[in-house]
Order: sequence, then structure tokens, then C-alpha cells
Amino acid sequence: MNIEVAPAYREELIAAGLLIPLGSDGLYARSGVFEAILEAIDALAVRMGADHGAEVLRLPPGMSRGAFEATGYMRSFPQLAGTVHCFCGDEQAHRELIRTLDCHGDWTEGQAASDIVLTPAACYPVYPIVARRGPLPADGHAVDVMSYCFRHEPSRDPARMQMFRMHEFVCMGSAAQAQAFRATWVARGQEMAEALRLPYRIEVANDPFFGRAGRLLATSQVEQALKLELLIPVTSGAAPTACMSFNYHQDKFGETWGLRCADGSVAHTACVGFGLERLTLALLRHHGFQPAHWPDCVRAMLRI
Amino acid sequence: MNIEVAPAYREELIAAGLLIPLGSDGLYARSGVFEAILEAIDALAVRMGADHGAEVLRLPPGMSRGAFEATGYMRSFPQLAGTVHCFCGDEQAHRELIRTLDCHGDWTEGQAASDIVLTPAACYPVYPIVARRGPLPADGHAVDVMSYCFRHEPSRDPARMQMFRMHEFVCMGSAAQAQAFRATWVARGQEMAEALRLPYRIEVANDPFFGRAGRLLATSQVEQALKLELLIPVTSGAAPTACMSFNYHQDKFGETWGLRCADGSVAHTACVGFGLERLTLALLRHHGFQPAHWPDCVRAMLRI
Repeated sequence: MNIEVAPAYREELIAAGLLIPLGSDGLYARSGVFEAILEAIDALAVRMGADHGAEVLRLPPGMSRGAFEATGYMRSFPQLAGTVHCFCGDEQAHRELIRTLDCHGDWTEGQAASDIVLTPAACYPVYPIVARRGPLPADGHAVDVMSYCFRHEPSRDPARMQMFRMHEFVCMGSAAQAQAFRATWVARGQEMAEALRLPYRIEVANDPFFGRAGRLLATSQVEQALKLELLIPVTSGAAPTACMSFNYHQDKFGETWGLRCADGSVAHTACVGFGLERLTLALLRHHGFQPAHWPDCVRAMLRI
Repeated sequence: MNIEVAPAYREELIAAGLLIPLGSDGLYARSGVFEAILEAIDALAVRMGADHGAEVLRLPPGMSRGAFEATGYMRSFPQLAGTVHCFCGDEQAHRELIRTLDCHGDWTEGQAASDIVLTPAACYPVYPIVARRGPLPADGHAVDVMSYCFRHEPSRDPARMQMFRMHEFVCMGSAAQAQAFRATWVARGQEMAEALRLPYRIEVANDPFFGRAGRLLATSQVEQALKLELLIPVTSGAAPTACMSFNYHQDKFGETWGLRCADGSVAHTACVGFGLERLTLALLRHHGFQPAHWPDCVRAMLRI
């Protein structure tokens, strides 16, 4: 939960035409200026990870329900998921649906779950793809993945969108490889923030596990420092926004998907995630709404 | 419906790693090669429409349910829509959900409709955005919009994805302006196909209206030639694939959203849509899987 939101900043972004509300909290159209910044950050992330020689995967905003179920997401974060439902009726059912529409009734009751779920994190669909191929190479495998993600957390905070893009680099290999990968990116993330002249701090964090039982999982995640975040003040100084996250999953996804190292051991995985809309908002917040007036070093870094 | 599909072509695309199945028909990850082609087509479309001075809007894959309902989509194409549903229960409901998961039962029954619906066509969210601003300028208004779209039509035909990107130019203005815009793009679409050395034909088409009542609407649409398509053989020579469409909506969206011309009359609208995945598949089909070996003129046109 946000401790504090800054409605003024939201209104400024909207007045400047950078974000256009779509009639549902956390859902916005992006202007050409906004998108050009976002694409520049996206390209910068790709350049910073070029040494991985990573496999590039670009994903649609949904994944199969089977793969989603296997991630255990509904056990930990049921409140955030979005399942896709469809009309599967015949012509009579359609006539009833139209009558419901005519009476402004709830026509969604007849919708049935399809086998698609909106992707909650860009890396989730990646593990089964790689696991299907057999054991990993001896030096592990890296993937460069980008996806629109969905989180059901309607908010007026423009840095908390329901639909947003996440660019990730994912490492799969031994525990040592995964940990080294993460350490590399914690350093690179800070270099990136400094080069972009953005104030930041790194913090140990936890995912928003659901309910009382979830609190124990969150505490354990913090105690083991499995999740680090790079926070930048965007809509609030008191509650800065997580713009990058650096995650060590241990063998969770390796176990789930039967992902093996070359020596037959269960693979460990790690990922770094860039919140592309959040980084865009951070740049706009700290350097102003006109990229042409941003510091030369920032423009040079972004090649804009 | 496809008369004929070409499973061999699908398997070739998968074997080449260009598309990676995600476990649900019509849902694929894209490789870096696939994506680079798609981005080149996207950029070409932007260059071809540069003279419009169009407003750039980039959309998330979902729109608000209110705006979706107003389009009348559930009346005409209920079978294609995707509503987003979420878990809104408490901890006890979550414990029940986990029990259902443990028994491999249908846990989606407890999901409740959110106020987000997946966007079925890139231009749908655009009309209310522009209408809110008041009457159009005297020379109308053009929008350059791109969005992931969803259509619930699971298929093994790789040219019929459930989640795909559509780039559109939209014209809002008088009937004459909308019709002239469409005529311009029917010509430009053919120029584009010729420059890309793709075989094509232009045909009058209809949208896939639902049921028997829908057949009348389809017939009327064809009789008035409101929808033209540029078809390219991709997975089948007998049933070529619609890779671009050129639509004249008359005053349908103008009426729906109260979109007015400068003189107070109801605006007419038209749009051209580029199916980005389909055009990518068409290029791969006709020029081979290695863009480095494509004809020089095609590479020059795409700047790859």
C-alpha cells in the first residue's frame, strides 16, 4: 500500500498530455513523448546487458493458465492476478446478454474462464520455455525478456499502474551463477541511476504476499534478502517507488519446472526487472516534462 | 474461419525459433529476429503516415469496461471479447481457493469481473479520448495508435493469434475527410505491399459478426463496402490472410461518443490497421527466415 500519494503530480502529467486516463484507475494511454522516453530506457537496459549474450524473448500480455497455476501465484498473490474470461454461449445466450446490456445489468456473469491469464511478471513464462529444452549449458543461460504485465491494484498513483511494461534479464544456472548475476545487476542498476542523475537508494524488500500467512513469507523473504529494490522518489519523497528489482529465487523455479543444470542439479535463478513506466516517470519527475531540456549527460546516456 | 491451415508452416516457424508456443493455441513468445522485423514494419507504417502530423498514442492491452460497453462490441462480437476477472475475497475465501487448487478443481469460479476488458482493436479507446476535448478542428484530427489486442479465437494458424499488435492511423472529421483518408491508405497499403515484394489483393470484407442476426450486419457491411482488406497468402494460398484493413465507420463512433466536427455535425471516422505480426509472418513466408538474405530493396524499405 502507498503511504502517501501525490494527486498533484498525476494531474500535472495528465495536463501535460503525457498520460491520458482511460477511465479505470491505473490505466492510461501514453503520449508520443512518454513513449519515446520509455523506449530509450528500454534500449539502455538492453545495452547494459549486452555482455550476457542473452536470448531475446518478447511476450504477449498473457500466458497459459497451466503455466500460471504452476507458478503458485494464486497461493501467494491472489489479489493481483487477472484471468481472461470469454463468452462461450449460443445465440439464445447472446440474446439474454443483450437484454442484460439493455437493462444496464451485469452481463459479465455469463463470462467463462479462458485458458489465458494476464502475465504478472515478465519472467514467469520464460522458465518453462527454457526447461523444455533440457539441461542448461555449463555456463548457464540468460534471457532478455519484455512484457506488458498486469497487477490488479487500482490506484490514483501514476507510478502504480495496473498495466505496465517490465524489462527483465533472467539468469538460470548454479546458485553461484545466479547470485553473481544478481550482484552484477545491483551494481549496474546503481550505475544506471547515477548516469541518469536520479536520486535512489537500495533496500531489502518483500513481495506483497496475501493475508496473515503471507506475512510469514514476506518476513522470510526479507530475512534472506531474496529481493532488493532500487527506489526513486517519484510521487512521494516519504514512500519512494521501486523502479528496479533484483531477485534471487533460489531453486523455486528450477524445482517447479524441472529446470536442471548441466551436472543434473536443480537450477537456481535470478532476475533483474526494470519498471519501464516507473523509470520514465522518475526521469520526468526529476528532469522536467521536456526531454529537450534535460541535462546533456542524461540525454547522451539515453541517446535522445 | 480459416478454410485451410498450414500446420507445416507453424512447425517451421517454431523449429526456427521465431515463435515459441506458450501452451495455449494462438499464444506465442517472439524471438529477437521476429521482433526486429515487426519493429521495422511498425516504423515503416509511422513513416508512411508522417504527413498526417498525427497525435501519437500508445495503449496498454486493456480498456475500461465502460468504454468497451459503449462500443457495442458485446452485441456484435461477443465470442471474441476478453474480460479481466480478479480475486476479491478474504482470507477464508483464499483458503478455499487453495483447497480447490490442491484438488485440481476450477479455482476460476470465484473470480469476479474487474472494470478492465482487453482491447479488441487499437482504435477503440481513442474515440472517447478525443471526444472529451470538444469539437474537432476544421481539418479534422488524425491519431497514430498502437496496442496489443485480444481476440478469443484459439487457432493453430500462426497468422491467427489471440494476442497480437495492431498499428492504426485514425481519421476523425467530415464524411468527405474520412473517405478521402481511407482512399489514401488503400493506395498506400498497396504501395507498401509492392515495395515489400509481397503478393496481395484488395477485397471487400466483413467483420465476424455473431450469429444469424450478425449475418445481416455482415451483408450490409459488404454491400456498403465499409471494410476493405489487403490480403496476403501466409499460411494458405486459398485463404490469404488480412494483413491490413481499411475501414469507414460512417458516423458510428461519432454518434457513440458525441464526437463533433467544428461545424457541430456528427463526426465521421475511418481507420487503417496494420496487423504487425501478420505482416511479419508474410515477410518471413515470402522472403525466408533470414532477413539478411532478403532482397536489398525490401531491406532498404524496412531499414534493416
